[in-house]
Amino acid sequence: MLSSVKRLLIGRPLKSTALGEQKLNIFKALAILSSDALSSVAYGTEQILLVLATIGAIAYWYSIPIAVGVLFLLAALILSYRQIIFSYPQGGGAYVVSKENLGVNSGLLAGGSLLVDYILTVAVSVSAGTDAITSAIPTLHPHNVLIACILVVLITLLNLRGLTESATILSYPVYLFVIGLFILIGVGIYKIMTGFVPSAPHASLGSPVQGITLFLLLRAFASGCSALTGVEAISNAIPNFKDPAPNNAAKTLILMGSLLALLFSGITFLAYYYGISPKANETVVSQIARETFGRNYLYFFVQGTTALILVLAANTGYSAFPLLAFNLAKDKYMPRMFTIRGDRLGYSNGIVSLGIASILLIIAFSGKTTQLIPLYAVGVFIPFTLSQTGMIIKWLREKPAGWVAKLTANLIGTIITFTVLMIFFITKFGQVWSVLIFLPIIVLFFHRIHTHYEAVGEQLRLDPEHPAVKIEGNVIIVPVAGITKVVENSINYAKSITDQVIAVYVSFDREDEKRFEEKWEKWCPDVRLVTLQSHYRSVVQPLRKFIDTVEHKASESNFRVTVLIPQFITKKSWHNILHNQSSLLIRTYLVYKKKVIVATLPFHFKK
Amino acid sequence: MLSSVKRLLIGRPLKSTALGEQKLNIFKALAILSSDALSSVAYGTEQILLVLATIGAIAYWYSIPIAVGVLFLLAALILSYRQIIFSYPQGGGAYVVSKENLGVNSGLLAGGSLLVDYILTVAVSVSAGTDAITSAIPTLHPHNVLIACILVVLITLLNLRGLTESATILSYPVYLFVIGLFILIGVGIYKIMTGFVPSAPHASLGSPVQGITLFLLLRAFASGCSALTGVEAISNAIPNFKDPAPNNAAKTLILMGSLLALLFSGITFLAYYYGISPKANETVVSQIARETFGRNYLYFFVQGTTALILVLAANTGYSAFPLLAFNLAKDKYMPRMFTIRGDRLGYSNGIVSLGIASILLIIAFSGKTTQLIPLYAVGVFIPFTLSQTGMIIKWLREKPAGWVAKLTANLIGTIITFTVLMIFFITKFGQVWSVLIFLPIIVLFFHRIHTHYEAVGEQLRLDPEHPAVKIEGNVIIVPVAGITKVVENSINYAKSITDQVIAVYVSFDREDEKRFEEKWEKWCPDVRLVTLQSHYRSVVQPLRKFIDTVEHKASESNFRVTVLIPQFITKKSWHNILHNQSSLLIRTYLVYKKKVIVATLPFHFKK
Repeated sequence: MLSSVKRLLIGRPLKSTALGEQKLNIFKALAILSSDALSSVAYGTEQILLVLATIGAIAYWYSIPIAVGVLFLLAALILSYRQIIFSYPQGGGAYVVSKENLGVNSGLLAGGSLLVDYILTVAVSVSAGTDAITSAIPTLHPHNVLIACILVVLITLLNLRGLTESATILSYPVYLFVIGLFILIGVGIYKIMTGFVPSAPHASLGSPVQGITLFLLLRAFASGCSALTGVEAISNAIPNFKDPAPNNAAKTLILMGSLLALLFSGITFLAYYYGISPKANETVVSQIARETFGRNYLYFFVQGTTALILVLAANTGYSAFPLLAFNLAKDKYMPRMFTIRGDRLGYSNGIVSLGIASILLIIAFSGKTTQLIPLYAVGVFIPFTLSQTGMIIKWLREKPAGWVAKLTANLIGTIITFTVLMIFFITKFGQVWSVLIFLPIIVLFFHRIHTHYEAVGEQLRLDPEHPAVKIEGNVIIVPVAGITKVVENSINYAKSITDQVIAVYVSFDREDEKRFEEKWEKWCPDVRLVTLQSHYRSVVQPLRKFIDTVEHKASESNFRVTVLIPQFITKKSWHNILHNQSSLLIRTYLVYKKKVIVATLPFHFKK
Repeated sequence: MLSSVKRLLIGRPLKSTALGEQKLNIFKALAILSSDALSSVAYGTEQILLVLATIGAIAYWYSIPIAVGVLFLLAALILSYRQIIFSYPQGGGAYVVSKENLGVNSGLLAGGSLLVDYILTVAVSVSAGTDAITSAIPTLHPHNVLIACILVVLITLLNLRGLTESATILSYPVYLFVIGLFILIGVGIYKIMTGFVPSAPHASLGSPVQGITLFLLLRAFASGCSALTGVEAISNAIPNFKDPAPNNAAKTLILMGSLLALLFSGITFLAYYYGISPKANETVVSQIARETFGRNYLYFFVQGTTALILVLAANTGYSAFPLLAFNLAKDKYMPRMFTIRGDRLGYSNGIVSLGIASILLIIAFSGKTTQLIPLYAVGVFIPFTLSQTGMIIKWLREKPAGWVAKLTANLIGTIITFTVLMIFFITKFGQVWSVLIFLPIIVLFFHRIHTHYEAVGEQLRLDPEHPAVKIEGNVIIVPVAGITKVVENSINYAKSITDQVIAVYVSFDREDEKRFEEKWEKWCPDVRLVTLQSHYRSVVQPLRKFIDTVEHKASESNFRVTVLIPQFITKKSWHNILHNQSSLLIRTYLVYKKKVIVATLPFHFKK
């Protein structure tokens, strides 16, 4: 039953050899991996204007030079990540680059930030999308959290179905959004050029603005940089590309950068030219679309696809998180289970963990995750800075052909990203301080996992000097509660293994003990019976003491002790509460506490 | 750690031989077993007046003849249960009486009603007590449900500590309540006799009342009968008494009946004489106490002890439920676990189940359990009627000395309780209809459990005609994932049992398979290695197929198949998430689905 539900939701299992078919071409990869970056266009310009609005509309013209700055940073990042893709074609992005060039801790810091960041991406973008939905249908508003959780579950299921399938479904909304924005920008510019838009009261570039400070401009710049989150995703997900993977990934990266640059400049320009102010109840993009089209179907098309892409931005996290977790797990910094491919060849454990973590976050913040956005921006600029610094070290060390140009690109990138990171910490410390606490904790945990796995490896390694000593024989202890078919089966099995079989009976009073001893003597005189008195009515305690004694004696002559416990397999699952409590107790206790082997002998009820 | 918390809350385990010390003397038994019945005094009179108030104050004098009727029923019940105590000194009350004389289904009906009733008692009385507390401290009001749940947990813990300990703690409030009410009634009557109370505007007995109907009087009578719930508790709990148990139980019953009669008549008389009307925001007892004492410390003493006894009424359920469940479980109508005495010699499973069930009920009704009171009254009058009918049959069949008098007592009791039951169904059908649905379901479930245990007994019974066939030998399958110390241990153990050892390796690709085969050949050439290809990356599926094949072959020559699975025992519990996922999966699957023996070989990590 369970497995058919699973099959319905996720699809039939795929053979390992089908892995190649699950790889992405450029068209699909662009849709899936750039949805996060492209969706930032929906709010990037607004973030800049919100900061400038504290001075007044006169300051809005600064959005143009700030946007130029953002574009410049974008170009540096794209160039830099392009170099990372070719240098580290196995993927892993910032984690691998930092680890290889700056040391393990930097790598873990980059990896940890990104893992947290992808969880934040999913929580924030799904919450934003849910807000858009419930703003349109207000009766759904009280169910915000539930709807967000359902959306996360749906995206998780889609990703469990596999990459190509989710890419096929999810690429339409992304391209529709891009088309919608291009039409918007095209029509807007056409109208401006043909003079249709009434000359808006925008201040011309360079107008003097009173009260403007460097601090404010830096804040506006940092806010605008939030449009750049998601740029790193492609470098983590190179193994998901069709061959030649690095080339395809690099092409996708360039395409994404160009689209992002075009859309961001277009929207920022229109906002400036129309003289648009950010409003509490209408987004900047909505205002631009309304001014350009009026409230017609094109306006609703832009609004609809914007809401969709906000939800789908989550999907970038789903593509990058499992691969990053795989890389960390491969290096033994995360549980081994993240290296296992599921039925549909995705790293299911990573996908499911991401889903669960973001649902917990959504519930913890009651769906109000916008306060997490600054955290999220910091979380991505840390790996940006680390990975570029790593590349600088790499060029300096290896000095390949043309390394000066490459170094320059990364150096500029490092300086800008580090500056932005500092601006974040200085201008928004109240919102991002928690990063300074939880990132070290995460890195510490990575180390503890690593230490454990290393210790385990050492303990498991064969020692040819000291091979295991030959076992001389076996003692089997069979706890019995009566003389039944189960006991008959157990004794029969035990006798087939060794002639050292001890039946143990725990009795609560003397008379019962005597009665049982007599019955046993009659039924099975060739197997030794030991009766134990339990003054405290516990079966486990006397059994434990007895097993200790036997184990101690047996180990002296290198005998192994096996405890044989019957397990009733009931026909109906509710029957389980009528049985097996003692077996379970004994088994759990013995497995975890003792050095004995615990054998479970199933007894299948026929009714 | 866990066990020391348990010891702190519940106390050190008691030896089985200490059972005698855990028995109750009359003084403690009266406190513990009559708190339910005595607490009814706090609301019994009020219930009658509430019905009469629908006609008007003129009708209040009817409370006197109605109270006489209730007292008459009380006397019949006490007499009748006294006879039950001596006839069935092993306890079990209505369940045993009905089962022995009327047949199994009547017994189960009586037992089922009482079980449900004790759950309702706990939920209703604790909710009522919580209401009293939060009325006094209104800031606590929003936490009603939480407080009620905490109270249930406290009472549960107290009962897990054992009978005498809970009796010692809980008897003070009960006796204080009794003393308080006696002072109230004494002072009240003294004041009336000395003429201190201004002649109240009460209608004299026998005044004609317009609009009074038989239906209304019957409803008032039935409501007054809710004061009689709890009378049966002693007959269920006879084994908890010090020897001679039946005599002590009978004395306690008579004492309880007398106290109940005195208090109930006193309160009803004062209410009538003072001409008190039931009010929404003040109880009848509070009004009487205020009129008698004024708002001085005696008034608050009565109010405080009344609130306490409402909570403690729950305790009667805790004494009776586990013993009733024990009786049902002994007869195989409930899971066997209800027959096991815990560390402190109480039937812990019954106590804990009662606690959990009432917490669930409190949560389900958000602490508003007053609507359950009629259910609760019906639930107790069903076993009243059944047990007395059972006693009639018993006297008719056995005809012991003086049987006519005994029969008469039970006959009168039966007629009245049956009448009250019918009145409940007729006058409050809307509130009690659900009994007609869930009681048959409970009885059905008792039967299904019984059928299952019977079937199990049959399947477990030794068949001397067909003794178990001797096992010819053993095959041990050892799933291996590499060549490590764990594998070395496993193979070593397997070889000590049989020479039919098969190591199984599940590989995901051909190269890996080949490599492993070569390594194995070098390391352990004398143990056969089987490699299985897993196209779908599942370890369990290919293993399952392989085990099926081996099992099939082995069973032909009467060989047993054992699968040996290593289990890592980690030093720290959080390390568990880093290991054992596959072992757990394989073991769970094999134990439940297959006929093979599953042996768990522990490997203790040292760090």
